[in-house]
Amino acid sequence: MNELHASYRCSSGCAGEYPLDEIIYRCPRCLDLLEVKHDLRPLASRSAAQWRELFEQRCQLRAGLSGIWARKEWVHPHLQDDNLVSLGEGYSALRPAGGFGKSLGLEQLWIKQCGDSPTGSFKDLGMTVLVSQVKQMIAAGRRIEAVVCASTGDTSASLAAYCAAAGIPSVVLLPAGKISPAQLIQPRAHGSLTLALETDFDGCMRLVQQLAARPEVYLANSMNSLRLEGQKIVAVELVQQLGWQVPDWVIVPGGNLGNVAALGNGFLMLRELGLIERLPRLACAQAAHANPLYESFRTGFREFHPQPARPTLASAIQIGNPVSFKKAIRILQQFDGIVEQASEEELAEAAALADRHGHFVCPQTGVALAALIKMAARRQVQPQERVVVISTANGLKFVESKIAYHQRALAQLECRLANPVQHTAADLQSVLATIAAHAARMSG
Amino acid sequence: MNELHASYRCSSGCAGEYPLDEIIYRCPRCLDLLEVKHDLRPLASRSAAQWRELFEQRCQLRAGLSGIWARKEWVHPHLQDDNLVSLGEGYSALRPAGGFGKSLGLEQLWIKQCGDSPTGSFKDLGMTVLVSQVKQMIAAGRRIEAVVCASTGDTSASLAAYCAAAGIPSVVLLPAGKISPAQLIQPRAHGSLTLALETDFDGCMRLVQQLAARPEVYLANSMNSLRLEGQKIVAVELVQQLGWQVPDWVIVPGGNLGNVAALGNGFLMLRELGLIERLPRLACAQAAHANPLYESFRTGFREFHPQPARPTLASAIQIGNPVSFKKAIRILQQFDGIVEQASEEELAEAAALADRHGHFVCPQTGVALAALIKMAARRQVQPQERVVVISTANGLKFVESKIAYHQRALAQLECRLANPVQHTAADLQSVLATIAAHAARMSG
Repeated sequence: MNELHASYRCSSGCAGEYPLDEIIYRCPRCLDLLEVKHDLRPLASRSAAQWRELFEQRCQLRAGLSGIWARKEWVHPHLQDDNLVSLGEGYSALRPAGGFGKSLGLEQLWIKQCGDSPTGSFKDLGMTVLVSQVKQMIAAGRRIEAVVCASTGDTSASLAAYCAAAGIPSVVLLPAGKISPAQLIQPRAHGSLTLALETDFDGCMRLVQQLAARPEVYLANSMNSLRLEGQKIVAVELVQQLGWQVPDWVIVPGGNLGNVAALGNGFLMLRELGLIERLPRLACAQAAHANPLYESFRTGFREFHPQPARPTLASAIQIGNPVSFKKAIRILQQFDGIVEQASEEELAEAAALADRHGHFVCPQTGVALAALIKMAARRQVQPQERVVVISTANGLKFVESKIAYHQRALAQLECRLANPVQHTAADLQSVLATIAAHAARMSG
Repeated sequence: MNELHASYRCSSGCAGEYPLDEIIYRCPRCLDLLEVKHDLRPLASRSAAQWRELFEQRCQLRAGLSGIWARKEWVHPHLQDDNLVSLGEGYSALRPAGGFGKSLGLEQLWIKQCGDSPTGSFKDLGMTVLVSQVKQMIAAGRRIEAVVCASTGDTSASLAAYCAAAGIPSVVLLPAGKISPAQLIQPRAHGSLTLALETDFDGCMRLVQQLAARPEVYLANSMNSLRLEGQKIVAVELVQQLGWQVPDWVIVPGGNLGNVAALGNGFLMLRELGLIERLPRLACAQAAHANPLYESFRTGFREFHPQPARPTLASAIQIGNPVSFKKAIRILQQFDGIVEQASEEELAEAAALADRHGHFVCPQTGVALAALIKMAARRQVQPQERVVVISTANGLKFVESKIAYHQRALAQLECRLANPVQHTAADLQSVLATIAAHAARMSG
């Protein structure tokens, strides 16, 4: 194979090319985000059949298997194997969701469970790339004191775990007094320097911008386009899991919108290299309380207005000013994509319904499932079409909101599927009678 | 291949054989537990090489892949494919734990992360077998109103999810007022009938025994030996993940002790069918607060005394009267096995140390890692030996005890690796100074 090549380019098309070993987050000309561009010619020296066979081979059940590094040539060909920092991310289950699908009249539904991951969210898929890049820069003699982010959720958990595995210091910036202990336990457990600052979130973000200008600090937030190279592998995995067939629809929750762009880029690369012949349609699902892309979609993407996000159970996508909105719009336009939204009621009921079918989904996945319910109801998704819903985090990260649902403690929500604990006398006849009544309800 | 055959036999060797379609939990002669015995002759009509190849083929990355049903002939050959109830369990990561291993002077350490699972624990591996069996009995016309258990933890979560997927009613029995909402959210979310009884735990267990005698109720508790047939596949998977090499040591946390027996049975089957040539040594790790097997080991297994278990952070193995102790002892004797114990201090520090290396382990895994630390210190495990630690549940199920550790809120424990949140002024110079000090500490 000829020399592989990937580099940063301006995502809005300005001239210029920057090596992946450079610390740069935005185009110096227009200040838009960068994106990683792969030279497809050397990659195309392997045929589609050869790539498929290679990926099948490398995904054999083995110790230390990483779904990302099994496709290293497509992700970051310049990383030395010595510098890879992996916790065994990727190759997450594509779970049949036939029961849930059937309740909507759909015959072929799967959930890609990206929450089956070292830190419990899809962020690991990108973080393995970012931290490996940092390790490589440090190995090359660059002085990087720490990798920094200002997230309170999945990003900080993932950053902390990968930096811990690599022995690289990580730092999480937070406004003092605003964050619960549960939100912080992963970075703390992984030994991140966890800083509570006497300011609010905006103050933290301003500090992060200042830190980004310092050469000794590397930024892990969503401006960093390296992470999307790992996240795009979700498209490769799900196509491989479907026996190299393309689904008709892929539905993904959207907050900062990098994930929509990553998914699209994955499918484009699959098509450009001949592994698939057509593209799926993409649907981005937003919480109605944080729906700037949905509002933009209603104008045909002619307008885009950031908004103050309102609190939502889908806290990981409670973002009113998404950093990757331009990338997401460009992708959706290429994929005949749509944007759908879900109210708090809709997302909570959709998640509860999935749980009733044996899944245990996070509220963000609830948003995607609620979008699917609407799309199926208006026949935008046809009964026989193949649908994949991307589940972005492990439901075990969200037991508090599930408890609130089942105790009917969510303000203004009906919680139709709430399942109360039933008090019963402790004798055989009472218990048997209660069981019989329950069995009759279920079969009836 | 000739007709495959598996049936229940008395685990203590009484004569008699019972079909797997029968509802029977104990030997009618001696009342000891049953175990599933496979006729190895028809299985041996495939060579070891053919079995390896078949398992490799079936473990390709595909939608709906189940690590258990990829080895159906070894688990339960009489189940019809139509009756399989799977949520995509098994093929969990075998994660290199080189950093943790190195800190003990070990060169080859892996963690088999069984907590990467639909409901977050290894119980899914057995529950898919049990619920599939129930589905098959119902399909054959048997009237089973519900599957019942009295667990407050992983077993009820798993039972509830698999029954939800199958549309079979499930029931969880609990003493009223003793259980936290967090312990119950999985069964409630999956629609289990969750009964709070006006009695204590012993009262619940008495009721379960009475229910077990009723033909319309199927019991999912640890007397049920069908579950071990799924759990034994962990041995097959980890050997496959090591490229069909046998580790030198496998360390597994032990409470009710069925999992030790299952693991041993998996290795024995691998050897009997020629896929491996030697057995690993097994180590069962118990919490010092619930250590009847450890005490028995100290008598050379000549004596075994149930004990009242004391509270332990490793709540899933807080069991003083383990139902499968005889099975476990027989296995340990065949594997030149040992039993080790870990104090609360030892298990908490071991878990915290693993987290510092990028893992996020449950307290039961902390017990196993603490046992390994002692075994390495006394050179019972040699530096170059291959060691696999079985992680039984997802760390995300245990954030409360991790928070308590990092807030130094665990009574009488030092919490040496506690990582407090640091308060810092919200200006660039203060933050940079704190980062530099942290980086210097980590490199120094």
